[in-house]
Amino acid sequence: MKTYEQHPVTRIRRESQENIDDFVVTEFPLTIFLNENEFVTVVCTPENLLELAVGFLFSERVIDRAEDILTSRIDNGRNIVYISVNERQYPAEGVRLKRYITPGCFYYTTLNTGAKKIESNISARSGQLLELVHLAQKKSVLYRMTGGVHSAALCCNSEILLFREDIGRHNAIDKLVGHCLLHGMNMEDKILLTSGRVSSAVMVKVINARIPIVVSSSAPTSESVKLSDKFGITLAGFARGKRVNVYTNTRRITDTQAAIL
Amino acid sequence: MKTYEQHPVTRIRRESQENIDDFVVTEFPLTIFLNENEFVTVVCTPENLLELAVGFLFSERVIDRAEDILTSRIDNGRNIVYISVNERQYPAEGVRLKRYITPGCFYYTTLNTGAKKIESNISARSGQLLELVHLAQKKSVLYRMTGGVHSAALCCNSEILLFREDIGRHNAIDKLVGHCLLHGMNMEDKILLTSGRVSSAVMVKVINARIPIVVSSSAPTSESVKLSDKFGITLAGFARGKRVNVYTNTRRITDTQAAIL
Repeated sequence: MKTYEQHPVTRIRRESQENIDDFVVTEFPLTIFLNENEFVTVVCTPENLLELAVGFLFSERVIDRAEDILTSRIDNGRNIVYISVNERQYPAEGVRLKRYITPGCFYYTTLNTGAKKIESNISARSGQLLELVHLAQKKSVLYRMTGGVHSAALCCNSEILLFREDIGRHNAIDKLVGHCLLHGMNMEDKILLTSGRVSSAVMVKVINARIPIVVSSSAPTSESVKLSDKFGITLAGFARGKRVNVYTNTRRITDTQAAIL
Repeated sequence: MKTYEQHPVTRIRRESQENIDDFVVTEFPLTIFLNENEFVTVVCTPENLLELAVGFLFSERVIDRAEDILTSRIDNGRNIVYISVNERQYPAEGVRLKRYITPGCFYYTTLNTGAKKIESNISARSGQLLELVHLAQKKSVLYRMTGGVHSAALCCNSEILLFREDIGRHNAIDKLVGHCLLHGMNMEDKILLTSGRVSSAVMVKVINARIPIVVSSSAPTSESVKLSDKFGITLAGFARGKRVNVYTNTRRITDTQAAIL
């Protein structure tokens, strides 16, 4: 399925007007069945759907590792991913109730509040982070076509290892996480870039995946600053052009005074 | 409660670095109790909370009009809005189940698929829409402080009647809708501006509120284009500076060829 559609548009500029066909990002409802039961419907951009489903289940703490998945199957015609897990992994009624009362992109309850602080001693220069953001922007083909997607990238030092785009900023991160789980890639020594704002929901995914550095081109919220401080994550925001703000755990940014002292 | 918090930030620029206190938008979990039962938790910016709760319940089709609300009360200390409605309004188990399986900002199931096409004959010039977008940007104080919120505005001709900001683009619209319900304001002859992308979830709110023209500074998705076409809504996107794209029902934009023909 295509990640974009063509639609007729009247494009109005100050002194001209034209009727063209323009690209609009596809909005696609993917339903995840867990052990034969309908579990959740995620609205997304239709690519890397198994990664998305696996990453979502991990971020929601339904599974702890790829090995918890017994079988997986995609029915592309019906927009369904079927995943079966060990019965013991199946979320209890209480967990489902908790999730029911928290739509609106709020996954706070899925945080393991007993999670250990992230102690990783990886580091980066601020210029390196800005260069990665620049590289990610160059990779954003669907964004340039449609203007309607967010991106997420997983980086090692100065290299982008994985890059995903989706209409949902949460989904783009889940796709990265799902790929890492399915391919046995370590996330604990990586840098996560996101084009979107960093809310508590995003930070909970980062904490569950144990990624030590998060860089956003956009703003953080009060809760994401508090969570990143508490769990030892370096949070940078407004990384655009030649500037970046570092909110927490500045010690990992090697050209700041905090790192030098 | 404040809509922003101050946090220490290391601001790094190419040739300078400073430790300052910067503003971060407050992320606030508001829980809505419906007839004494916990119904939903919405993460939001803490202002206009009753409007948000009422707008949310209307957008989710729990209520059809303000008169369906018997009592409402805010407990600011515990972040709770209590709303009681007629028993017949209380959503059936099936509705709640449907909502449970659709987090991730997907409210498609709350659309009244039997809703009539919007026939309103209000109109606007493209330059008028761009001027409204410009006026709304000037009003976005919290955005300029924190960079972390979306805005929504309800307009009549060339005037912004209502303006709301929130970390959630859906919430900003719900706050407008809630205000209109609580104050008996008609939405059927108004123009809605949104700073955010227009997904099906946004368009469902617009259809339920019966607003005939929607203008976004950002992108639409494939589903929102289809819904606006089907329900007779004029959808404009990428309204920035001196350009705007009109996707559907172009007849309401009086300086397009579609309107002139």
